[in-house]
Amino acid sequence: MCTQNNLVLYSYNKIKEMIFTYKIAPGEVLSDYTLSGKLNISRTPIRQALLMLLSDGIVEKSNSSFNVVKLDRHFLDSLYEARLCLEPYIIKHNENIDLEKAEELIKKEENYIKGQNYVNALDIDLEFHNLLFATYDNSILSASYKSIYSRMKLANVISLASVNKKAADEYKQIISSLKVGDKEKASKLLTKSISKGYTQKIKALEKYGALIFEMIRGYYENSNK
Amino acid sequence: MCTQNNLVLYSYNKIKEMIFTYKIAPGEVLSDYTLSGKLNISRTPIRQALLMLLSDGIVEKSNSSFNVVKLDRHFLDSLYEARLCLEPYIIKHNENIDLEKAEELIKKEENYIKGQNYVNALDIDLEFHNLLFATYDNSILSASYKSIYSRMKLANVISLASVNKKAADEYKQIISSLKVGDKEKASKLLTKSISKGYTQKIKALEKYGALIFEMIRGYYENSNK
Repeated sequence: MCTQNNLVLYSYNKIKEMIFTYKIAPGEVLSDYTLSGKLNISRTPIRQALLMLLSDGIVEKSNSSFNVVKLDRHFLDSLYEARLCLEPYIIKHNENIDLEKAEELIKKEENYIKGQNYVNALDIDLEFHNLLFATYDNSILSASYKSIYSRMKLANVISLASVNKKAADEYKQIISSLKVGDKEKASKLLTKSISKGYTQKIKALEKYGALIFEMIRGYYENSNK
Repeated sequence: MCTQNNLVLYSYNKIKEMIFTYKIAPGEVLSDYTLSGKLNISRTPIRQALLMLLSDGIVEKSNSSFNVVKLDRHFLDSLYEARLCLEPYIIKHNENIDLEKAEELIKKEENYIKGQNYVNALDIDLEFHNLLFATYDNSILSASYKSIYSRMKLANVISLASVNKKAADEYKQIISSLKVGDKEKASKLLTKSISKGYTQKIKALEKYGALIFEMIRGYYENSNK
């Protein structure tokens, strides 16, 4: 029936979902004992799932306990610096971007924002970034981008507290520049967009403090109704 | 006596040493059966060691077999592009470089080159790069650099076929620029030095072809006498 590998993957996906919908808040301890009870799965596959989340960069290990990474200024500084180092470089050199698909995603994001469905808009936003960077034909840099991706998903939800309603417009300009072959401009616009995202998140964190996670959880609960 | 973990680590180090001294050549298949016989260790820890080498980026897996990565143009292109994307950025922003230690390493490298001990000079060269980048206070970018490090060690031995006797001088200039606070210049000099390393390696590969690995193996055998 359910092999050990299936149990690990199942636990991995379940715990990740709880983290990404803030049912387990950033900084919170991940007890294999508690999770084992909640998911009704023995502790060995749970611990293996936690190790996978560790390599995704959204879980930390200190001594013998695991916890969701803290979404603080230090985390955002590291993440956004890595993004600013890699993404503008990659967009300038990636010959494999599916621009049509990118435009479709932008349209979708625009519609979600119009409909105030910000949770879905965020998912599309991530998909858009993934389309631009994960297809880059350099296994080392793609792996580096991959190590950023889950952290981005975790950090991006802060945007729910301060939605950037112009994100789709910014992306449109980036894709337009790529379409006319102006990679330098696309790279600069992307740098600007990432920097803006950073500033908005820092401001939201400062304004709402820990309350921000309550707000975000509320969003997810509403969007599931 | 010898726990399972110790056996894995022992195998890992032994296989890595064989790869880095070209006893197992780039592209060669790593049979867990053969390695098991050679090292007199059962196949389970050998396979775990191979998985560790996989995550170091110096071993590949295709279908069910492992092989040392091919040291070809494609490998060098990916590696050097990743280096050019990350290292000049990091040197410009790293506040934690131990410049005194860097100067000590340069002096050592210089002496090894004078004494024509190129194998040791290469080790010091790597240590120098590690000192500049691994200490950067951004866990994401440091991890990216770490994923480059083992690949660099593998690629750097190509330099034995075409030794850059001026490397120490180039590093001296980089450190001098850092000492007077001219990070922009340090970053540019580093870009130049990395690009030069790339060109030399491509040329050596083109000139000697597969013979290059015989030459390098000879170097290691001589340096062990």
